[in-house]
Amino acid sequence: MLTEKLTWRYATKAMDASKKVSREKLDAILEAINLAPTSSGLQPFEVLVISNDEVRAKIREVAWNQAQVTDSSYLLVFAAWDNYTAERIDAVINQTHEERGTPLDVLNAYYDNLKAMYLPRDAEVNYAHAARQAYIAFGIGLTAAAFEEVDATPMEGFDADKVDEILGLRAKGLRSVTLMPIGYRAQSGDWLQGAKKVRKPMAELVTEIA
Amino acid sequence: MLTEKLTWRYATKAMDASKKVSREKLDAILEAINLAPTSSGLQPFEVLVISNDEVRAKIREVAWNQAQVTDSSYLLVFAAWDNYTAERIDAVINQTHEERGTPLDVLNAYYDNLKAMYLPRDAEVNYAHAARQAYIAFGIGLTAAAFEEVDATPMEGFDADKVDEILGLRAKGLRSVTLMPIGYRAQSGDWLQGAKKVRKPMAELVTEIA
Repeated sequence: MLTEKLTWRYATKAMDASKKVSREKLDAILEAINLAPTSSGLQPFEVLVISNDEVRAKIREVAWNQAQVTDSSYLLVFAAWDNYTAERIDAVINQTHEERGTPLDVLNAYYDNLKAMYLPRDAEVNYAHAARQAYIAFGIGLTAAAFEEVDATPMEGFDADKVDEILGLRAKGLRSVTLMPIGYRAQSGDWLQGAKKVRKPMAELVTEIA
Repeated sequence: MLTEKLTWRYATKAMDASKKVSREKLDAILEAINLAPTSSGLQPFEVLVISNDEVRAKIREVAWNQAQVTDSSYLLVFAAWDNYTAERIDAVINQTHEERGTPLDVLNAYYDNLKAMYLPRDAEVNYAHAARQAYIAFGIGLTAAAFEEVDATPMEGFDADKVDEILGLRAKGLRSVTLMPIGYRAQSGDWLQGAKKVRKPMAELVTEIA
């Protein structure tokens, strides 16, 4: 079931701008992204969902002119926290206490250790760690799109600093990590459509130590 | 469907060592991992599947003594390439040419650009990029386990250098990135089992620019 969906999906190169992804399908994809596991439950990223054509045109200019940026229905921008802070961690502690009922002293015992490790670290190290968490959600988001029979393109090819500027991300303590346009594959003009999926032989991927 | 599976899964804290994950289910999880999309199709990581008890005991010692390392049926170690090299990229070019029939000059036009970007870069930068790709597969692997009704624990809490040493990864040009023990949840002793899943309100995760 899952492998069928993963086999169906591909990095769509040309999208049909006239076909729109429904709000329901968008919401299902975002819900799956929100369910992604992250280190210590911090969810250190946000997702910008861009349908505005002017903003998308600006992003396309700094994303190697990739047409899916504007021909998709929605452009999802995964943006990671630029750093870990006490405030951000405290928000998770408080939400967990309120929703799960875990006593604050239990939560603090755990998260105080985490703060002692994260807060003195260089912002760049913390951002890199946060970005990795965003990649877990990114993989799950791509999977969720396939379940909705929505096409998606995983994209790293863009100028992150420029995207941050266009979206004002740095002022919000965020940095763009990946793009994920979602939409519907075009009937023609997509060289990758229908191409055989190439993956490592399992013997090259996996080593067993029994 | 997908969100049900993602809601079912949780970072299992105690596993029942007497219950074994079948070979079929392991294979399905590994197949999903192999289907994960990666940047330029390079799949710059491998997965070690460890059932050997002595090796797992050694890893547990350098993984904060987390019991799932030894109580799981299999311990999956995601290990990223320590660097991009011409040889590694050429292997992907050749496989794509053979399996998909893409002419070598077309492939070289693309991958020569990639080599020009990757090969002069510091190994640490390339490793960090490869590790991000492993995280995509890690997220999909956790999802695949849930589809197989197999429990799994995403783990970053271990001494990567020591795991590299135990498994001889550096000599193979690999570096450990994450651990994923898979098995079955224990009936008791797992404080997280049955706890409410805590996630950001959608309004905090998502910003729409329409």
